[in-house]
Amino acid sequence: MKKVLLTGATGFIGRHCLRALADRGYEVHAVSSREANSREAVANVVWRRADVLDRAQTFALVESVRPTHLLHLAWYAVPGRYWTSTENFRWVESGLNLLQAFAGVGGRRVVAAGTCAEYEWGDDAPCSESKTPPRPATLYGACKHAAHVMLEAYAAQERLSAAWGRLFFLYGPWEHPSRLVASVTRSLLRGEAARCSSGRQVRDFLYAEDVASAFVALLDSEVEGAVNVASGRGVTLKEVVEKVGEKVGRPDLIEFGALPSPKGEPGVLVADVSRLRDEVGWRPRYDLDAGLDRTIEWWRGAL
Amino acid sequence: MKKVLLTGATGFIGRHCLRALADRGYEVHAVSSREANSREAVANVVWRRADVLDRAQTFALVESVRPTHLLHLAWYAVPGRYWTSTENFRWVESGLNLLQAFAGVGGRRVVAAGTCAEYEWGDDAPCSESKTPPRPATLYGACKHAAHVMLEAYAAQERLSAAWGRLFFLYGPWEHPSRLVASVTRSLLRGEAARCSSGRQVRDFLYAEDVASAFVALLDSEVEGAVNVASGRGVTLKEVVEKVGEKVGRPDLIEFGALPSPKGEPGVLVADVSRLRDEVGWRPRYDLDAGLDRTIEWWRGAL
Repeated sequence: MKKVLLTGATGFIGRHCLRALADRGYEVHAVSSREANSREAVANVVWRRADVLDRAQTFALVESVRPTHLLHLAWYAVPGRYWTSTENFRWVESGLNLLQAFAGVGGRRVVAAGTCAEYEWGDDAPCSESKTPPRPATLYGACKHAAHVMLEAYAAQERLSAAWGRLFFLYGPWEHPSRLVASVTRSLLRGEAARCSSGRQVRDFLYAEDVASAFVALLDSEVEGAVNVASGRGVTLKEVVEKVGEKVGRPDLIEFGALPSPKGEPGVLVADVSRLRDEVGWRPRYDLDAGLDRTIEWWRGAL
Repeated sequence: MKKVLLTGATGFIGRHCLRALADRGYEVHAVSSREANSREAVANVVWRRADVLDRAQTFALVESVRPTHLLHLAWYAVPGRYWTSTENFRWVESGLNLLQAFAGVGGRRVVAAGTCAEYEWGDDAPCSESKTPPRPATLYGACKHAAHVMLEAYAAQERLSAAWGRLFFLYGPWEHPSRLVASVTRSLLRGEAARCSSGRQVRDFLYAEDVASAFVALLDSEVEGAVNVASGRGVTLKEVVEKVGEKVGRPDLIEFGALPSPKGEPGVLVADVSRLRDEVGWRPRYDLDAGLDRTIEWWRGAL
């Protein structure tokens, strides 16, 4: 029996993992510190309330579930703050506690979420797990990378099978309203102006449901180490915003150049996805058009 | 006024830092969780008792001292255990707490102890801060490296000046009796056999008082980032042990090959010390002969 403990289960990615995990035959124990009303009812999913920032609660939870698999997605993610917040330190500690508790009950396989912010930025080539050096430019990227370094060493020592899915850019239902795709979509659906930067940055976007599906495929594989979770295709932010404009039918409301471009961010940030594609054997279900169509449809219902 | 908080002040390196810091004009606040009887009385040194594994005690300590400088040497160091112990995780957390508390009171300059175990092992070339990739093979090395990655990012963000002294091999007074130089010296001084491995491994040894002096010079400089703290000279363990044998006058008691060589350790581990020498402007006071003479003399008095 495969029994998975899923952290961040009410989060942007986690909520899409529930069904994907159940579909692959996992008994799913979904953790959230939130009230029950934010929890989706899915067959074969048991909800567990716990604060994984609390060491005692974490150990009690893991000892009660005794999972064979751990999919650890929970992290501090408040837009505008997560890049620099010392909350990142607390999530590093939380991950270490989870990992020790998991090893303590004989857990076998762990997958956790990393980030493209672990890589050195500045080179326009696709980020490669083996070739691009880790050199995080932000506290968020540094803490994620530190967590990865410790996970790798601890897993090797304790003979846990471990992988680390590096997230790039994502969008979809339930995205925080202040983030790019959600913010533009909501403004246009309301008939309000969408103020944007010039949008020349090239990014790698993947639909949230696909991100979740990729994490679940990675968990269900035996692939170890860092694996980029992305589309492998670069697109400018301008193209993404223009697509939303066309699909909503209000391209006139978009104001490119109304906001300054953020400083210190790389021009191009795209993933080399050969490990995900060839070793995990995973491919996205939704391209950018299909993903945006679904996202806009969801926001129509949610507004 | 330069006011330094020194952690690990009763430790192998820390105890040699007290006078070196005072000599450079620092008001020294030396921290230890141990009883007062392990503390050396040095002019301009104020002893503070605190457990820096405790977050509340750490913040209270730093707020009470309000240091301008932080020299953080405390870490888990029980021989035979520190390579694999999850105590390493607790010391990562401790370092993060210290750092946040230090930034909170307006601290300016921090230096902490890293390790040659952060580097990729296997290449016989001297380990270079800029050229040798970090790829720790042990949990200890991984945790030290993780701490360094987070220190760098946090210091850059908070505009703290920060350096990271990477230790190689050291010996001297107060060394733990189970470690190589201490163990062989004690055995020979007692007229007992010293059982050793073949001793073919090449290592970079620095006398503990020199290690402390290098850390203090680094703290007192403006050099940032990783800096190897070592002699830059390789010597086989066999040569070190033979020197001890000659100096004590009992080479006959040494049994090379009586113990198996430890597995998974690199053949050569020597530092490139150009940053320490050229940027910090530091040079060792004791070569291997002078350091061993002093060490043996100290053990004669201590046994």
